Amino acid sequence: MAKTNAFYAQSGGVTAVINASACGVIETARKHKERIGKLYAGRNGILGALTEDLIDTSKDSASAIAGLRYTPSGAFGSARYKLKSLEENRAQYERLIEVFKTHNIGYFFYNGGGDSADTCLKVSQLSEQMGYPITCVHVPKTVDNDLPLTDCCPGFGSVAKYVATSIREASYDVASMAKTSTKVFVLEVMGRHAGWITAACGLAQESAGEGPHILLFPEITFEQDRFIARVEETVKKYGYCVIGVSEGLKGADGKFLSESGLRDAFGHAQLGGVAPVIANLVREKLKYKYHWAVADYLQRAARHIASKTDVAQAYAVGKAAVEMALKGRNAVMPIIVRKSAKPYKWTIDAAELKDVANKEKFMPRDYITADGFHITAKCRAYLSPLIQGEDFPPFKNGLPAYVKLKNVAVPKKLAEFKI
Amino acid sequence: MAKTNAFYAQSGGVTAVINASACGVIETARKHKERIGKLYAGRNGILGALTEDLIDTSKDSASAIAGLRYTPSGAFGSARYKLKSLEENRAQYERLIEVFKTHNIGYFFYNGGGDSADTCLKVSQLSEQMGYPITCVHVPKTVDNDLPLTDCCPGFGSVAKYVATSIREASYDVASMAKTSTKVFVLEVMGRHAGWITAACGLAQESAGEGPHILLFPEITFEQDRFIARVEETVKKYGYCVIGVSEGLKGADGKFLSESGLRDAFGHAQLGGVAPVIANLVREKLKYKYHWAVADYLQRAARHIASKTDVAQAYAVGKAAVEMALKGRNAVMPIIVRKSAKPYKWTIDAAELKDVANKEKFMPRDYITADGFHITAKCRAYLSPLIQGEDFPPFKNGLPAYVKLKNVAVPKKLAEFKI
Repeated sequence: MAKTNAFYAQSGGVTAVINASACGVIETARKHKERIGKLYAGRNGILGALTEDLIDTSKDSASAIAGLRYTPSGAFGSARYKLKSLEENRAQYERLIEVFKTHNIGYFFYNGGGDSADTCLKVSQLSEQMGYPITCVHVPKTVDNDLPLTDCCPGFGSVAKYVATSIREASYDVASMAKTSTKVFVLEVMGRHAGWITAACGLAQESAGEGPHILLFPEITFEQDRFIARVEETVKKYGYCVIGVSEGLKGADGKFLSESGLRDAFGHAQLGGVAPVIANLVREKLKYKYHWAVADYLQRAARHIASKTDVAQAYAVGKAAVEMALKGRNAVMPIIVRKSAKPYKWTIDAAELKDVANKEKFMPRDYITADGFHITAKCRAYLSPLIQGEDFPPFKNGLPAYVKLKNVAVPKKLAEFKI
Repeated sequence: MAKTNAFYAQSGGVTAVINASACGVIETARKHKERIGKLYAGRNGILGALTEDLIDTSKDSASAIAGLRYTPSGAFGSARYKLKSLEENRAQYERLIEVFKTHNIGYFFYNGGGDSADTCLKVSQLSEQMGYPITCVHVPKTVDNDLPLTDCCPGFGSVAKYVATSIREASYDVASMAKTSTKVFVLEVMGRHAGWITAACGLAQESAGEGPHILLFPEITFEQDRFIARVEETVKKYGYCVIGVSEGLKGADGKFLSESGLRDAFGHAQLGGVAPVIANLVREKLKYKYHWAVADYLQRAARHIASKTDVAQAYAVGKAAVEMALKGRNAVMPIIVRKSAKPYKWTIDAAELKDVANKEKFMPRDYITADGFHITAKCRAYLSPLIQGEDFPPFKNGLPAYVKLKNVAVPKKLAEFKI
């Protein structure tokens, strides 16, 4: 088969291990120089392809590329940019293919969540129609863990490990101070639509008396009275109450609690953050002293406490993507298949993108306890393997020593394209 | 000298390493059985002494006690409970001494910040007056790093390492997404009166383009226009702006910004949190997309990313406290003395409690840049050694495996005392 170049881009919110997938893609491509010439990366994701702003990854050394394995964030820049449908904006898709053709790109590796899987599929279909067939492989990534078919999504295991570690540590703190100080602590975590990250908080609890005592899932409608009763019961029983809450918690009206009326002094701002809303509710109703934390980007960037399993899987899907492409697989995505739970054994398989794109995987109801406030043993059995193992980055001067690539631009050959 | 028992209590907000000090106290006491009989701990700090709720630490094994070295929080319970002045509540001090006398306690080790140093001194003085002299040694602890005389305070180095690591990771995240998404990120950290923790965020920045770009110290009055101008300038120059802000940031009116008018829908709640106030200001004035995080207890409980230097110092002051007491030193506190900065060498000395109690150490002005928005080279030289080295706890099932003690109660001998 002919030798062509390849293109790799990162899409959507970054994670602690998306660069480990990039590392898998690049290192594997470098091992197949007979088939893959240059591996270009998109600067700021798909924008780099649309604007012909390509990065020549060959300008970075093997050791710099190896450093991607332990560096969080998107080393080439990622983008929150969803291509419209083919009908609405065919010109964008045609531009992509024009750029690929101009730079002799025959492989497209797109590293992201559900939206990017859809884009990947469309590029594959249109390139075929346009007579310049491109082999398109989607590399899964999302902290939300909401892609279908795969056992889990690279990026999730590390967030899960971070939130479970953090809420365990905070629980110890609150337990030791509750007699005279804070009795209720609320930690807000990500996952607007699916409660996987909230569920992961639950792994920190080994017995009923330990935190977190209450989890508030986006899948379970928030009922104020039941919640307040449970908080009071917990404080009376154990002396304190630790709560993990999803940013996507909704009330009976279907609205996010974080948007339920937090205003600044001028009355016109909505600041977001469900943790302060929940904490304030506890104060209003129960008068307990409270504290709250919002982990926000800290959780998805926390490479320092990444899951070794997650890092290995992120690398493996990157590697597999290149290997699948070289075998002629097109419009597919490497997925993680659980072979056994105890001990955890997994392997990589391929899923068709048409079965992946635009589908979200929510928490099964039997992963949440009947009362809606915690995770079941079944959920623990699913989650626990995903946080196993530590994979600390190198440290220098007391801080994680992450790599920065040169990101040398490839000379442009086309006219400017407005996006 | 006669053999007596000893009493140890934890005071104020707990840290990632206060138990390492407890470990130093207990292990050292166990090595001197000829002088120290039982080592009792106060359940919930000084409350345990007042209510005669003593814990017999001899009931816990050597390995459990060794586990305190890597376990955050207060293993015996801490308390936010400040004894009033001798004039106001002499009965409480007399009760303490009565409990000590009843349980043949001749040594008092009190592990806390400025308030507890003061209590420790008073107990020493009053016990002398009452004819039952107790050897009182204060063991320093505070994430705020605001005790005088000592080079630093055990607990601070680990928070410093946590916030610097976290804001570096979040900066990488924001940098890689800023083209199409969040441009401004705000992390709120502890330190209501002194800016040491805020300063530690600055260690994450290795060049001007990297985050954090702006630090907002409690020592520097917040000026909205100058701040907004700097944010805009930073985003224009580097594409994004990462901000570390102290919970204690104040405006020209002397009021905390966190209390500057955040209200819920009913208009009657003040929720706290300066990060959302700052983030909202950026949105109002500059329209940039923003995110914010509040680390809260996560930062002071984060034993998983503790500073090895901090852990060693926390243990050392606990050990030294017992050794000083056995040498007959009274009303003193072990302090950390910096012998050299590069390489960092330190030793332990003793300070008189009368020179320590009720004094706060603020950031010197020359540790903050002239514009008030960052730290100077002098500040870096001071801070950097304190976060050196990693000392990861053991992990089990993917999470830090912290110890829980038995905390067996000592039978009471006295009548109840109402507090």
